[in-house]
Order: sequence, then structure tokens, then C-alpha cells
Amino acid sequence: MENFNFYSPTYFVFGKGRENEVGEWINRFGGLKVLLHYGGSSAVKTGLLDRVKASLKKNNIAFIELGGVKPNPRSGLVYEGIEICKREGIDFLLAVGGGSVIDSAKAIAAGALYDGDFRDFYCGKEVEKALPVGTILTLAAAGSEGSDSSVITLENGMLKRSAAGDALRPVFSILNPELTFTVSPYQTACGITDMMAHVMERYFTNTRGVEVTDRMCEGILKAIITEAPKVLAKPDDYDARANIMWAGTIAHNDICGVGREQDWATHKMEHELSGLYDVAHGAGLAVMFPAWMKYVMPHNVMRFAQFAVRVWGCEMDFQHPENTAKQGIERLEQFLVSIGMPIRFAQLGAKAEDIPTLVKNMQPGNQTVGSFVKLTEEDVRKIYELAV
Amino acid sequence: MENFNFYSPTYFVFGKGRENEVGEWINRFGGLKVLLHYGGSSAVKTGLLDRVKASLKKNNIAFIELGGVKPNPRSGLVYEGIEICKREGIDFLLAVGGGSVIDSAKAIAAGALYDGDFRDFYCGKEVEKALPVGTILTLAAAGSEGSDSSVITLENGMLKRSAAGDALRPVFSILNPELTFTVSPYQTACGITDMMAHVMERYFTNTRGVEVTDRMCEGILKAIITEAPKVLAKPDDYDARANIMWAGTIAHNDICGVGREQDWATHKMEHELSGLYDVAHGAGLAVMFPAWMKYVMPHNVMRFAQFAVRVWGCEMDFQHPENTAKQGIERLEQFLVSIGMPIRFAQLGAKAEDIPTLVKNMQPGNQTVGSFVKLTEEDVRKIYELAV
Repeated sequence: MENFNFYSPTYFVFGKGRENEVGEWINRFGGLKVLLHYGGSSAVKTGLLDRVKASLKKNNIAFIELGGVKPNPRSGLVYEGIEICKREGIDFLLAVGGGSVIDSAKAIAAGALYDGDFRDFYCGKEVEKALPVGTILTLAAAGSEGSDSSVITLENGMLKRSAAGDALRPVFSILNPELTFTVSPYQTACGITDMMAHVMERYFTNTRGVEVTDRMCEGILKAIITEAPKVLAKPDDYDARANIMWAGTIAHNDICGVGREQDWATHKMEHELSGLYDVAHGAGLAVMFPAWMKYVMPHNVMRFAQFAVRVWGCEMDFQHPENTAKQGIERLEQFLVSIGMPIRFAQLGAKAEDIPTLVKNMQPGNQTVGSFVKLTEEDVRKIYELAV
Repeated sequence: MENFNFYSPTYFVFGKGRENEVGEWINRFGGLKVLLHYGGSSAVKTGLLDRVKASLKKNNIAFIELGGVKPNPRSGLVYEGIEICKREGIDFLLAVGGGSVIDSAKAIAAGALYDGDFRDFYCGKEVEKALPVGTILTLAAAGSEGSDSSVITLENGMLKRSAAGDALRPVFSILNPELTFTVSPYQTACGITDMMAHVMERYFTNTRGVEVTDRMCEGILKAIITEAPKVLAKPDDYDARANIMWAGTIAHNDICGVGREQDWATHKMEHELSGLYDVAHGAGLAVMFPAWMKYVMPHNVMRFAQFAVRVWGCEMDFQHPENTAKQGIERLEQFLVSIGMPIRFAQLGAKAEDIPTLVKNMQPGNQTVGSFVKLTEEDVRKIYELAV
């Protein structure tokens, strides 16, 4: 096991009706003037935004609204938010939505306390201070409600880039599974794929002696695999939605990833896909993860056999472990298909002829990507080709 | 799943040599004058205390020492610590030791900011404020380094009682597995039993629809069962010690317990045992947990069958699930024996004739104990008798 720091200070406020407490929670964390950040019309239509505003008013909290966050959130709106914060003396960011809204809020929170261009944080500079961010989650997927990171599409070039720092961890996150009842089956499945990917990026590691986190990764994946068909069959199954929602949070607050080298090559490859085609992140991951696995499996057959046996309940083939290893990847593909995910380029609308562009945008150059196997440009090209 | 709040703000600083950073961490959390709290001579003999003091001096942090904490920490030393804090203007508690030292430090931290008798917190009053507590853990067991609770033996009557509140969560905890290399096999096994008990108190619940936490509980137990024989066979097996140490922390910061009714009857019954006989808490739990399980198993045979199959790898007897359920309890007992734990009263030095005193000290009166099965005085008596 490697040395690590683990810090997850977010106050998670979980359950039915908890969004009505939002004003009290902002008070607790000292917010007086809030930027209320959200996406499209669904938060308005469902009445959620009205309930949020009622709670803010009841607690004498001033607020300015900034809606319009799109999936794969853009830098343009972030600049607008930063300008409002600076001009109006905003001291608290409230994100109402999914990972895109929360990531956009985090970018604004960091930019509001920074004299330079916020893009610096998305080009490698660590975020050391930011306005406090609170969230009300409406989509179980990205785990941004408990993470220290944020992903933004920088519009000049449509490059999807990430920033990180403890200052980006939300001070509170309100998670009411009922708010996810209306999420479409496709978006639900994208979210499920995203949270599984967050666990798998941590699971495939070269670090030895990490049994506790291995077992946690496997347990969370098994729970997701059990609960996913339930939410798709019955979108208002509270307990199933609750399990999926909580799984999405702990899949990405790093409790599954401590003390081990993590990979993240698949995320980087996917970011180029969704940056270029504006497809859903989860759908892109469904295409890229099995391709990555097929390519890197020979690097550690027993690791993939463990994945197959412990997560998917495959029988171990003791004479030919590589058969078991392959079976695990097949089971993942079958599962993704069963929840309605694409697993090939064409299903995404991506094109083989764009592979050189995808590889070029990632700019690995002489640098490699990932750590389970350190991928060169050539490796990355081959993995994209496996996904065609 | 039930509504819940989850809040674990402790900064966990894990790995080799990390105790040498302690002064920097106290600086980060604003400590200027520290009460350095520890137990017996082992922290002195191993040179740990000298390294801690060197780090404090290097960071210009003043400190006063208060050693002498005993296992099952007593109220007398807590009063002494509170008096020192008030007199000397202490603003930070540093606990160097195991759960007893940390619990004693938490009691002092709460008492130092309270005008009344600190015992109030151990008789039901919530702790709302306390001095910040940092810890350097030397024993993987109690989980106090990440928990919101503290257990103290109130010397007037030798009653072991607990206090809780978010203010008791340490601001940082330094966990270096190397510091546990010298822990004796018996104390190591007591710690392993304690952390398993912390998971099991949460696992046996009447709450339905908690698959994610079920799987996490099962995963952590499996990891402990795998790693325990390794640390006993080779006390300086770093990775095994590291897994056991981290398991002990997450077994009790409540990540395994969210959204569900928890039990804790066995801990209450054990507290009376270790209060009366001053035995190790883990050893008392090894005696009481199987007895509790045998008594309550008929309440939910399938829950115990799940425990047997998923945690212990038993084959499910689909015709007679109660056989599988019983097998799980037997496997737990066998495991406890294999790591050198007692499983009967006599092995502890406890006496059957004291059972009326144990029941009386627990004072359930008309109140019941636990939640999986709400135990009456009569039930508690029968469980103690099963442990004889």
C-alpha cells in the first residue's frame, strides 16, 4: 500500500425532502449572498427551484440566479458566473443539478477568488482557494458532489479538461433520491456507467497489498450491478435509486482509491470523444472501457480474473485464467448493453477517421497516459480502433 | 434506506513516517499550545514521543505533557486534563496512542470548553463544542481516530459510558502502520475483534434496501479475515498491518452504517463486562458477539445466512437456511479462536454469579437495548448465560 491522504469533509445530507433544508445548511456554512446555479428547465418544471428559493428566502439569504448550464459544461458560462460573483460580492455557490452544474459551479467558485484566467486551473494549476460550494444533486453519476475535481470544456478548441484541489470539495451536498425519479432511462444508464468507471479507474492498479480497497471497489460494483436493473424497471423505486445515488458519491470521493496508483487513461480517452462529439460522458465511457480492458488485459491476467470472479461471479478457470479474465470483460459489455448503453463508435456517432484527431487532441506526445499500463500515442490509437 | 447525515471531516494522513509531519498538521489547524496526551511507557521506549516533540518544537508549538492513560480510560485523568487545559490556555489536544488515549483526549477536549461536569456528556448530553483533537494512532482497533464518539469509565461505580457529537471528530489523524508492528499478538487480535464488531453492529439491521452498505460491510469483514492471520504470523508485514489499520478506521467512521438502523446491544453488554473486570474490550466482544448472534438469529434467519455465505463463503443450504445461518456464527467463533480470542466467560475471568450485577449495571429497566431485536432485561440475562 502506498502512503496517502484522505480528506472528504463534505456534509452529506441524504434522503427524502432534504432539499427543503438548503437555507439552513447555507446559514451553517456562513453564506449570505448566493449564486444559484442550475441547468435547463427541468429544475423549474419540477418545482425544485421554487422550493429552493423558498428555503433561501425563509433564511434571509440573498441570491442571484445563473441558469443555462449544458451537459459537458462550457467555459463561456463560467466566465459569466465569475464576473457576477466579483461584481455582486457573492460569497457562496449553490449548484442545483447534476455533475455538469456542480463542475461549472466549482469552476466559478475557484475563478471568483483568482485574479488570473480560471483556465489556468484546467491546465495543471492546483486550486488552493475557492468560494464555498453547496449542492443539491439531481443526477446520480459524476460524483462531483463529493469530489475534489471539476471538468470543463474549454470552448477554444473544444478541449475537455479537469481541475482539482481540496478547496473544490463541496461543504455540503443534499442528496434526495426522489429528485432522480424523472431522469430518463438513457441518462440513468449513463450515470450508472460513469460511477462504475470511477470505481474501475481505481481498481485496475499495479499497487499490491490493497485488500480493503479492492473489496470496497468490488462491493460497490456488485451493489450497482444489482440495483441498476431495478431503477430501469421501476424509475420510482426509492431504495434502488437511493443505493445508486449513494454509490455514485462514494465511487468518486476517493474512499475506493486510497493508497493505490490509479489509472484514469479511459477517462482521458473519453474526454476527447465527448469533447469532439458532445456525447454523454457515460456513453463514451461505455464504449472506451471494454476497449481499454481488452488492450491491457495481458498486462495482469490475474487482476482481470479477480475482477471476473469477485465482481461478476464467474467461475475461475484455474488451467486457463485468461479465459476467466476475458469472460469478465464480456460480462461487463453484456451488462452495458443490457442497460441500453452503446459499446461501439458507430452507436455514439463517432467516426474511425477522426481517430487521428482524437489522439492529437489528447496530446500525449512523448508523455504516456494512465498508470496500469503507461499508454503511448500508438497504444491510444489502437484502443480507439478496438472501440470502432 | 433511511434518511441520514454523513460527515467525516477528519484529514487522514496515512503511511510510513507520517508522524514526523505532526507539527505541520497542528499548524494547519491553528494549534499554538498543545496538551500532549499519551498512555504508558511504550510511546517513550520506541522513541515515538521524542519524534513527536521534535516536530512540535520545529514548528514552534508549545506543549504540556499528560501521560498515564490506561486501557478503559478513567474519569480521574480526564478531570486532571480539563484542569490543565483551563489553567494553561491549551487550544489543541494531541493524542498519541490507541483508542483509550484518543477517547480520553476527546473527553478532555469537550470538558475544557464546558462549565459543568464533563460526565454530563457521558450521560446523554450531546457534545456541541470541543477543542480540536489530532491523533497519532498506535493501535488499530477502536476507530476513535475517525469517529464522533468516546468511551470513558466513570470511576464512581466503574460504569463505562459513551459520549458523541460531531465536535469530537479529530481534525486530523496520522496513521502509520509501522507504529503497530510492536503491538502484541493478543492486543492485535483484540483490535481485530473490535473493528469486526463495529461493522457487525451496523450490519445486523432491520432496514431494507441498503445493498451498498451491506456490500461494504461484507467487503471490509472479508478483508479483515484475509489480513488478520498475516499480521499474526508476521507482525512487521507492512501491507497487512496497513490494511488492518485502515479497516479499523473505516469500520467506525460510519461509512458502513449510513441509512440504516444500527444495533449496538453487544457493545453495551460488553461495556458492563470490561467495566466490571477491566478486561480488554475486544476480548469481551469476542465473548459476547457469538452469544448475541445465537440468541437473535431466529429473528432473521436469512440475514444470518447472507452473513454466512457472503462473508464466510459458506454454501447456502436452500432447504434449511437456518443451517447456513448457524454455520456463519460457528465460522465466526472458529475465526476468533484461531486468532487467540476467548469466546467464553471463564476465559475472561468473568463469573456466572456476576450476571445479575452486569444486568443491573446496564439498567435497561423498562427500556430495551439494541434495535435488531429490542432486548429486555430477561433477554440480556439469557445472552450473558449463553456466553458462560
